[in-house]
Amino acid sequence: MQIVKDHGPITGESIAEKLNLTRATLRPDLAILTMAGYLEARPRVGYFYTGKTGSQLLADKIKKIKVADYQSIPVVVNENVSVYDAIVTMFLEDVGTLFVVDDESLLVGVLSRKDLLRASIGKQELTTIPVNIIMTRMPNIAVCYKDDPLIEVAERLIEKQIDAMPVVRKTEKGYEVIGRITKTNMTKAFVALAKDDLL
Amino acid sequence: MQIVKDHGPITGESIAEKLNLTRATLRPDLAILTMAGYLEARPRVGYFYTGKTGSQLLADKIKKIKVADYQSIPVVVNENVSVYDAIVTMFLEDVGTLFVVDDESLLVGVLSRKDLLRASIGKQELTTIPVNIIMTRMPNIAVCYKDDPLIEVAERLIEKQIDAMPVVRKTEKGYEVIGRITKTNMTKAFVALAKDDLL
Repeated sequence: MQIVKDHGPITGESIAEKLNLTRATLRPDLAILTMAGYLEARPRVGYFYTGKTGSQLLADKIKKIKVADYQSIPVVVNENVSVYDAIVTMFLEDVGTLFVVDDESLLVGVLSRKDLLRASIGKQELTTIPVNIIMTRMPNIAVCYKDDPLIEVAERLIEKQIDAMPVVRKTEKGYEVIGRITKTNMTKAFVALAKDDLL
Repeated sequence: MQIVKDHGPITGESIAEKLNLTRATLRPDLAILTMAGYLEARPRVGYFYTGKTGSQLLADKIKKIKVADYQSIPVVVNENVSVYDAIVTMFLEDVGTLFVVDDESLLVGVLSRKDLLRASIGKQELTTIPVNIIMTRMPNIAVCYKDDPLIEVAERLIEKQIDAMPVVRKTEKGYEVIGRITKTNMTKAFVALAKDDLL
């Protein structure tokens, strides 16, 4: 690595000469350093030093994880269902966030446990108020796409202080909900990282 | 690294000889490989190869993060307060989990948003039922300690399907609550990892 730092770009042959080694002896080491991202190899030019430390390389790898790699199945309710029915759905499906859609299955709102808890201690009759009265509505909903880097969505969940975000597909009419990404998914990604499942 | 793999334990001097380099030239490289965990150095014995890959070393680093590095301040309520007051506390403090303590400030229960939502759609009067009727109670509470590896607690949150765990101190009489660790804290650790703040 020091030779490449000082003399790069430099061919494998020239590195071998400087070390008094044959190219064949050196090849596996150069392969490892290149695979690990410390060196980069360009045909007909040679090796050069990428300047990246081990933890920068790790950060690069984390940035390649997509939302699609960790997303869950979304649970949606129609905007006309009652708050009571939404709470029942939340318990049956055992999720912390419901996405609200209109009759064309387009995203119109989000309901968190907090929204439902707030409504449930109010004075209103839960079986008669529709969820579209209490939900967080478009355009105040943070959304993400399946190809977004997972880590960027993690940062947005923290920044916006929300537990979940719908994964959407954009259409001419609006957003279709195709997934759900939560702090549970982020915790799973964190565990996978430590278990070396992901790298 | 190949020399150490083949001949280790081997002194820095012997490595330098094999490479036709001086020890001084070699020293920075050996220092980097040792710091990064690829090689280990023992006084009067020499260098040997640890056999660890980059991602194993990362996993080792993640395992060194403690609960104390990411824990939040706990929010506690007395076991005699009403469910209504607990819900109000949850909104005022903006947390997803409350810890319930007795008159000696010892942990006796946990209240999640889900527990409070379930109670709030029941037929009971929320201002008169005490939280100790609806809480999850000892010994069915998962607890952790400030020196526990964060990643182990992350795994237990996933496995037990809970959002938070009290960080406790064990005393002769029971557990004192000294912190709170949640999936939000885990998401923050995941983000820090990618930002290289943590390594």
